[in-house]
Amino acid sequence: MQTKTLGELAKHVGGEVVGDAAMQIHSASTLDKAGPGQITFLSNKKYVPLVKDTQAGAVITAEKMDSRASLLIAEDPYYAFMQIVVLLHGHRQHPQTGVSSHAFVSSTAKLGSDCNIHPFATIGENAVIGKNCQVYPGAFIGPNVTVGDDCILYPNAVIYDGCVIGNRVIVQSSASIGQDGFGFATHQGVHHKIPQIGKVVLEDDVEIGSGCAIERGTLDDTVIGKGSKIGDLVAIGHGTKIGPYCLLVPQVGVAGSVTMGHHCVLGGQVGVVGHIKIGNLVKIGAKAGVVNDVPDGATIVGTPAIDANKAKRAYSLIEYLPEMRKKIKELERRMEKTGSADE
Amino acid sequence: MQTKTLGELAKHVGGEVVGDAAMQIHSASTLDKAGPGQITFLSNKKYVPLVKDTQAGAVITAEKMDSRASLLIAEDPYYAFMQIVVLLHGHRQHPQTGVSSHAFVSSTAKLGSDCNIHPFATIGENAVIGKNCQVYPGAFIGPNVTVGDDCILYPNAVIYDGCVIGNRVIVQSSASIGQDGFGFATHQGVHHKIPQIGKVVLEDDVEIGSGCAIERGTLDDTVIGKGSKIGDLVAIGHGTKIGPYCLLVPQVGVAGSVTMGHHCVLGGQVGVVGHIKIGNLVKIGAKAGVVNDVPDGATIVGTPAIDANKAKRAYSLIEYLPEMRKKIKELERRMEKTGSADE
Amino acid sequence: MQTKTLGELAKHVGGEVVGDAAMQIHSASTLDKAGPGQITFLSNKKYVPLVKDTQAGAVITAEKMDSRASLLIAEDPYYAFMQIVVLLHGHRQHPQTGVSSHAFVSSTAKLGSDCNIHPFATIGENAVIGKNCQVYPGAFIGPNVTVGDDCILYPNAVIYDGCVIGNRVIVQSSASIGQDGFGFATHQGVHHKIPQIGKVVLEDDVEIGSGCAIERGTLDDTVIGKGSKIGDLVAIGHGTKIGPYCLLVPQVGVAGSVTMGHHCVLGGQVGVVGHIKIGNLVKIGAKAGVVNDVPDGATIVGTPAIDANKAKRAYSLIEYLPEMRKKIKELERRMEKTGSADE
Repeated sequence: MQTKTLGELAKHVGGEVVGDAAMQIHSASTLDKAGPGQITFLSNKKYVPLVKDTQAGAVITAEKMDSRASLLIAEDPYYAFMQIVVLLHGHRQHPQTGVSSHAFVSSTAKLGSDCNIHPFATIGENAVIGKNCQVYPGAFIGPNVTVGDDCILYPNAVIYDGCVIGNRVIVQSSASIGQDGFGFATHQGVHHKIPQIGKVVLEDDVEIGSGCAIERGTLDDTVIGKGSKIGDLVAIGHGTKIGPYCLLVPQVGVAGSVTMGHHCVLGGQVGVVGHIKIGNLVKIGAKAGVVNDVPDGATIVGTPAIDANKAKRAYSLIEYLPEMRKKIKELERRMEKTGSADE
Repeated sequence: MQTKTLGELAKHVGGEVVGDAAMQIHSASTLDKAGPGQITFLSNKKYVPLVKDTQAGAVITAEKMDSRASLLIAEDPYYAFMQIVVLLHGHRQHPQTGVSSHAFVSSTAKLGSDCNIHPFATIGENAVIGKNCQVYPGAFIGPNVTVGDDCILYPNAVIYDGCVIGNRVIVQSSASIGQDGFGFATHQGVHHKIPQIGKVVLEDDVEIGSGCAIERGTLDDTVIGKGSKIGDLVAIGHGTKIGPYCLLVPQVGVAGSVTMGHHCVLGGQVGVVGHIKIGNLVKIGAKAGVVNDVPDGATIVGTPAIDANKAKRAYSLIEYLPEMRKKIKELERRMEKTGSADE
Repeated sequence: MQTKTLGELAKHVGGEVVGDAAMQIHSASTLDKAGPGQITFLSNKKYVPLVKDTQAGAVITAEKMDSRASLLIAEDPYYAFMQIVVLLHGHRQHPQTGVSSHAFVSSTAKLGSDCNIHPFATIGENAVIGKNCQVYPGAFIGPNVTVGDDCILYPNAVIYDGCVIGNRVIVQSSASIGQDGFGFATHQGVHHKIPQIGKVVLEDDVEIGSGCAIERGTLDDTVIGKGSKIGDLVAIGHGTKIGPYCLLVPQVGVAGSVTMGHHCVLGGQVGVVGHIKIGNLVKIGAKAGVVNDVPDGATIVGTPAIDANKAKRAYSLIEYLPEMRKKIKELERRMEKTGSADE
């Protein structure tokens, strides 16, 4: 943590101060908890009412508004907030263990410079690790795995044999990368395991959440594209290709052989069936069940997932089904009367 | 395991024997599998028909009923059953490893008395562990973590840096506490990681299931309230506050910045969107998708979640949609006729 | 990897060559990526158009079709494909570590011949492990566990005390077998933990996916039947019995005390409530919520789950609810007119 003036922070993010530019700011906090010397931000309209009376020293906003705090006006307040949190607090400092004598590193593995290999980490045969990597306790890097530079594998993360990890990749605790795909040939009622000879490729700047399970491909690789971020407890099936810069929120499940474009956003607990194609810039609402191809730019919701505007209205009407059914019966009854009168 | 008479058990739970109070009981079992010398219980009405012919020595029930077994009448049979299982079988006995020479304990960590730190467990810098804690193999306690007394961290449980764990907390295998929240600022199509400077607080008597993923807060802490029990594979988002004495069944997902009151019960695979407020004593049915604030005492079901009484009927009518649609068309056709007759 | 002629492969699977039986095949690949010297297969009709122009040396199909590749005609192409992948590529070769000096094996544990116990694996007191087992780094086998022959426990897999594992069982990374069931007796607002004295039994040839959580039984055992395959991140509740040869796809959740027959298939993210009975040969579509007993041979979909044929049509009509409601209102309006004319 270090202290900056509000003016220095504004300069850092290309913003503008409305209020006291000389104010000392030592840390960031939330709108309702921040006090003097702290900076906070407004990006969700829901919290506008809190801005006026916040006890914060300063608030990052997109426009001038009434507040007892000074304002830091920035075009993209959330992005400015991110830059300021990095400046004031920084990212996690990793323990400097070097290559621990309690780690197990195969004699045929190659380690780049400045790696910290923690106690009880395992690096398998012929694995190649780039420079400045953090391999926490219990992390497992299997035989023939390649890991780029500046990667972080948190405790008990598992990378199976032969997978390829890019640069600046983060794998949170207990995530599994490259376990066998769920592939069995059923013959006369018995399920026979199919060797899964593909691998997993995590491209540069990917982050994988805690407890995720990313299957290796049966024949073709499973790929998570550059800059995509995967939340906790997400399951990705064998051979699926997630494009670059996607966001998959916790507990999403994507079956095998799916192709997904770039900049897609999948809400929590979304499920996607296998062998379909999701376009670019697709948004899928939380809990949706996706069973068909999705065109570029679509926003879909529901199970089965349909256009979000339609879905919002349609699904909210399920509540009225009993009333609708009653009305139909009433109409039929009255029609019977009228109808019989007609004949 | 130890043996007690049925009379002693009744006294232990403040109940009453109908039948043979001198009967020796050595263990507990289920209604359909229990035999002589065993005690079982009835708490789910579904199983009433099994009581009459059970081979059990004794059955715990709320009232007298016809049975070949002796009865132990207790006001709350399930609670009495719990007390008796604890008395006869006890909780798990933990291996007495002391501080294993195969564990890695930082020289700056502080351990209370009577802890068992198993092989391949890691205790980070400046961590403080209370007395009588069990830290199983592969468990990771990060730098600056505080753990209270009488806690159990099962194999491969991970507690990230700076988290605070109360007394008598249980973390089952491979659960992750305090990994980075899913927080990214997207700028010009690139997702930038926001340092997550909050922590996770698990209050006293919390239990966290296997494979759970409890994110640390971005700025404010994520909190699991006193006595709350979280099932397996549950995901909790950054900054969410779960109140005391809640029950979250396996595979529940709660997004970030949610506030939940006390004594809430969430069924399996429930999803809760971010930034909403769930009241006290709320019950949410399995698989529900909760998108709005929920008042105290509500019982809700469905996606989107609505009042359970309404929902039960409404969702069961989805099956009749084809019939309803056909009837509407039929009505329209007949109305056309009638209508044209009118003109 | 080894090379075979197409004729040899056909003989191996009991199939027939249409084309060049002398062609050398060195590996398997997908329809769109395979090249000369590679074999691929067609089992999903969706990919029929790719067969004609595939660059593969050979394609396994069920019948003759137009293709620039040679064909290997087999009755069950997917099964033939499996046999050929096993022949050409084989299953994973495990590192031959023997009993690593970096593993922790209790002096009272018994190990069969030819086991590889990797660094940082733990074998607890009185555990009995069969021959030719692979116990990867960080795997934990608790006290009194029994493991059969030819089992594979991948990194950080956890088997709690007393569980029983059959022969040829595979547990993928970070899966938990036998953690405490979610069992609490709530008394005066406080949840009291019930000792879970049952265990988990994994019968022969079971495979458990990464990150799964299989609870031990409260009194009675949790059982996964012979030859059943469980995908990643699946949660199974205490005392549930999954029959033989079932397939549970990733992220399925089955609550406690469920009885499931043989050869059931559960799609991704299916949820099953507790205390119900699922018959034999039942198919449950992805994301379904099952709340009632299911008869043998049923195929069900939706939440609540209903017959798949009904469901497919019914759930697809949710989209038309706004239109239906509007039409009902219109009919009522017109009926009012007509009706008033009648009076």
